[in-house]
Amino acid sequence: MTKAKFITFEGPEGAGKTTILKIIAQKLQLEGIDLVTTREPGGSKIAEKIRDVILDKEHTEMDAKTEALLYAAARSQHFVEKIQPALDAGKMVLCDRFIDSSLTYQGVGRGLGIDEVYNINVFAIGEKLPDCTVLFDLDPAVGLARINAHKDREVNRLDVESLAFHRSVREAYLQLADKYPERIHIVDASKNIDDVVEQVYGILKTSM
Amino acid sequence: MTKAKFITFEGPEGAGKTTILKIIAQKLQLEGIDLVTTREPGGSKIAEKIRDVILDKEHTEMDAKTEALLYAAARSQHFVEKIQPALDAGKMVLCDRFIDSSLTYQGVGRGLGIDEVYNINVFAIGEKLPDCTVLFDLDPAVGLARINAHKDREVNRLDVESLAFHRSVREAYLQLADKYPERIHIVDASKNIDDVVEQVYGILKTSM
Repeated sequence: MTKAKFITFEGPEGAGKTTILKIIAQKLQLEGIDLVTTREPGGSKIAEKIRDVILDKEHTEMDAKTEALLYAAARSQHFVEKIQPALDAGKMVLCDRFIDSSLTYQGVGRGLGIDEVYNINVFAIGEKLPDCTVLFDLDPAVGLARINAHKDREVNRLDVESLAFHRSVREAYLQLADKYPERIHIVDASKNIDDVVEQVYGILKTSM
Repeated sequence: MTKAKFITFEGPEGAGKTTILKIIAQKLQLEGIDLVTTREPGGSKIAEKIRDVILDKEHTEMDAKTEALLYAAARSQHFVEKIQPALDAGKMVLCDRFIDSSLTYQGVGRGLGIDEVYNINVFAIGEKLPDCTVLFDLDPAVGLARINAHKDREVNRLDVESLAFHRSVREAYLQLADKYPERIHIVDASKNIDDVVEQVYGILKTSM
């Protein structure tokens, strides 16, 4: 395996991204891979402050363009402070959500346009895309049911969007996977956790 | 006078913008003009939260692109929630700082490029520029001396930039005034307050 790869996990809430990212990270570390795990929005002190503004449930009047610009702002800070330095130090980076979340949730879900949201992200981070993206594909109804079954999980401003919103996001993810077949790899997140871990591990092994 | 004009006050800190905006607003209101005064960054609940992140003195590691995106995010929210509704209701809007602050402070002062910063602002607010902008022109050394003389004034993350930074911002403002001669009107902010009020009042009277 070569190091210094930038890997992102994408997909709806309730698809298991966060849990499986932890399991995969442990597995890779046991193999001697030097890696950093992180998440968006957030990942640095300033980016976490921006996260608080974005996800605050009281901010119901937030404009879609404001939301997209805040995600791009948090991404810029996270990239400069945490992701780029880790890659420069030869470490693998596993990141829970990145640019594809903005293209799907804001570009399509909010209707701002994929190209428009891509352009503000180019301002934020340049043309840098992840080396490999694992897309956890799942019927949004299943994802939302999983979220609701875990009462202790924090529910944020995007979780409470309509099923139609989450369906349009899923379609957008699948379109991105069509557009970037070399980068984006789909896993069936409806399977049990061991099976999904195996799928993800297989993708990372062949991509690295 | 026609109503529903969007007027912005621009220039360095210490030039008297905020004080004179209040005086001018009172003067116009006494003449029966229905107006709203506001400021950037901020002007709405969410935009003020973003303001807190931008100006926090502890955020010394903030990336320039993050800063520019946060200003654009705050502007988008402020425009949608406060400025556009006031204009739609036939009210004049007097705003302390707007897009020109981003073009000068982030585009030139931070070196991100005027066009690049303009483009993310077009994403934020469309092609909408103010109807009239009053530029308070002042030697930055004089402005900074005025700030330091008022010990009770809150000093923020941009005030503490070098004199060279503030000089480049002044040059950028003057270049914008060259580029938009119909929109941007320069006042000599080194004069005493009564004189500056008279200059600004004269500009607004002929612009409206």
